[in-house]
Amino acid sequence: MGPRAFSTDQSGGSVRVFAPASVSNLGPGFDIFGLALERPGDEVVVRAVAGTGIVSLSVTGDGGRVPTDPLRNAAALAVQGVLDRLGSDAGVAIEVRKGIPLASGLGGSAASAVAGAVAADALLGGGLDRIALLECALIGESKGSGADHADNAAPSLAGGFVLVLPGQPTRMVKLPTPPEMVVAVAHPALEVETLGARVILGETIPLAAGIRQWGNAAGLVAAFFEGDWELIARCVRDAVAEPARAGLVPGFRRVKASALAAGAVAAGLSGSGPSVFALCRGSLAAETAAAAMAEAFQLEAGVESDIVISGANAAGARILETE
Amino acid sequence: MGPRAFSTDQSGGSVRVFAPASVSNLGPGFDIFGLALERPGDEVVVRAVAGTGIVSLSVTGDGGRVPTDPLRNAAALAVQGVLDRLGSDAGVAIEVRKGIPLASGLGGSAASAVAGAVAADALLGGGLDRIALLECALIGESKGSGADHADNAAPSLAGGFVLVLPGQPTRMVKLPTPPEMVVAVAHPALEVETLGARVILGETIPLAAGIRQWGNAAGLVAAFFEGDWELIARCVRDAVAEPARAGLVPGFRRVKASALAAGAVAAGLSGSGPSVFALCRGSLAAETAAAAMAEAFQLEAGVESDIVISGANAAGARILETE
Repeated sequence: MGPRAFSTDQSGGSVRVFAPASVSNLGPGFDIFGLALERPGDEVVVRAVAGTGIVSLSVTGDGGRVPTDPLRNAAALAVQGVLDRLGSDAGVAIEVRKGIPLASGLGGSAASAVAGAVAADALLGGGLDRIALLECALIGESKGSGADHADNAAPSLAGGFVLVLPGQPTRMVKLPTPPEMVVAVAHPALEVETLGARVILGETIPLAAGIRQWGNAAGLVAAFFEGDWELIARCVRDAVAEPARAGLVPGFRRVKASALAAGAVAAGLSGSGPSVFALCRGSLAAETAAAAMAEAFQLEAGVESDIVISGANAAGARILETE
Repeated sequence: MGPRAFSTDQSGGSVRVFAPASVSNLGPGFDIFGLALERPGDEVVVRAVAGTGIVSLSVTGDGGRVPTDPLRNAAALAVQGVLDRLGSDAGVAIEVRKGIPLASGLGGSAASAVAGAVAADALLGGGLDRIALLECALIGESKGSGADHADNAAPSLAGGFVLVLPGQPTRMVKLPTPPEMVVAVAHPALEVETLGARVILGETIPLAAGIRQWGNAAGLVAAFFEGDWELIARCVRDAVAEPARAGLVPGFRRVKASALAAGAVAAGLSGSGPSVFALCRGSLAAETAAAAMAEAFQLEAGVESDIVISGANAAGARILETE
């Protein structure tokens, strides 16, 4: 099958897409589990314009810190991935509106890349399936953040709680979560650089830690299928990444302990941090846990926190506007 | 609570218990997954006799190779664990009837220990719960085989497909399996010594292998909940133990490949081998896969194989006779 002709008959059209933040790892699921939040999220607007490829790129909401070089920008790289996949020579102008704080551990690069891929595909009428969109988003995220795993991009795209299978071909499995589950996130005014947080893990782990990790990862899937909160509490434990990364986030251990003391069922680092998530039964419990986490970050690290209270975002990325 | 008095009013009574063989690991579940088979199994008969503690111990069906020293015999150690737990000074005579081949990778030590624990508890009217029985069985298995994990004992006790959570307190989670699943096992006339098969793994693993393992372990749980055979095929992969142990079982790679070529959905080493299991859709497929595995063991290693075709044993250990 040769390249299809996607060209300028959409000229002047535009698509605006929202892709949500996500909590990855969720305890034992390093590189494999992610959970989409209702908010915050990034928006990407793509417009068909004269020219070929990515004609312009602007970024707002980032304090001037996200790269605007299309070869280093997650959304632009994902758009380019879609253009390449569709064999399109269309010209595209991209506007990225960052809603997810940078280096927060909430999957901001992934969300930008997902929004870019979904928007470009919609603009060009490409009809790419979810796996193709995910692969295009991963091109964007991997060059943007060094990630080669889809534990943020997959939930941001598909919504809900997602298991990303290791290896090829790309496969994600959407899993149930208990309907009463509400996630509390405290995002402190601290930054953790993703690549550094990865390097600190080293290249080997103790076999005993590995056994704990796959036992708890398997247990968490069972717990979510069965809505078993006692099992969720038992299994949201990270034997691999969190112990190594905890020291990168001032106050983390006290913040986590305060969430649990305030009634959260489980808590841990969101991705590589510094955000801390807590899984709670109901909104009231989540609000209590979030307040406790923010207070602990203030006491322990002297920093303010942004708070997110959110159910699992069932929809994932969505087109907000098409013109 | 002081020790209860379990003594000689059951004198002369006896209990006979069957505990089934099991396939542990099942691909990605090293030390955490086990699946009970309908057969083979071990039987243990316990009798109340004059005296205190384990008064006599006999073993049949083992070719004289299972230790008959109560301090080294899995069933006797488990019986003693029950006596200790109940604070009983009863006298017990034990007869172990081995049905599971030694060093086969089918959980023979675990089954003997489970049968011993269940039989002793029934004889003494102890009413121990499943976790207590499992802990007593583990005392027997750990001194008998060096295992400190319940991935054989838990399914042998509880039946079905079981996840054993790492850490304390002891917790097992019984998980669903697709109703049409049939397990084929080829047990070649080879022996692999469990402790040696463990040492070969070393104490660390690559992080990348760990990620594959917990991704596939989580995926297999999801696949069993959803009855998704494509996902079962994808996730029954062992990134940690099987690659290291494959060389201990002559012909293993060809045997596994022959099972898959004959229509098995997935295959791998049962525990530390040398038995090879294959997961199949229906009995006919399992028989075909079993024959292919036996033929491959003959061709590649020049050995005969015993074949087991079995559904998941839903019942686990059971009392066959009480007098």
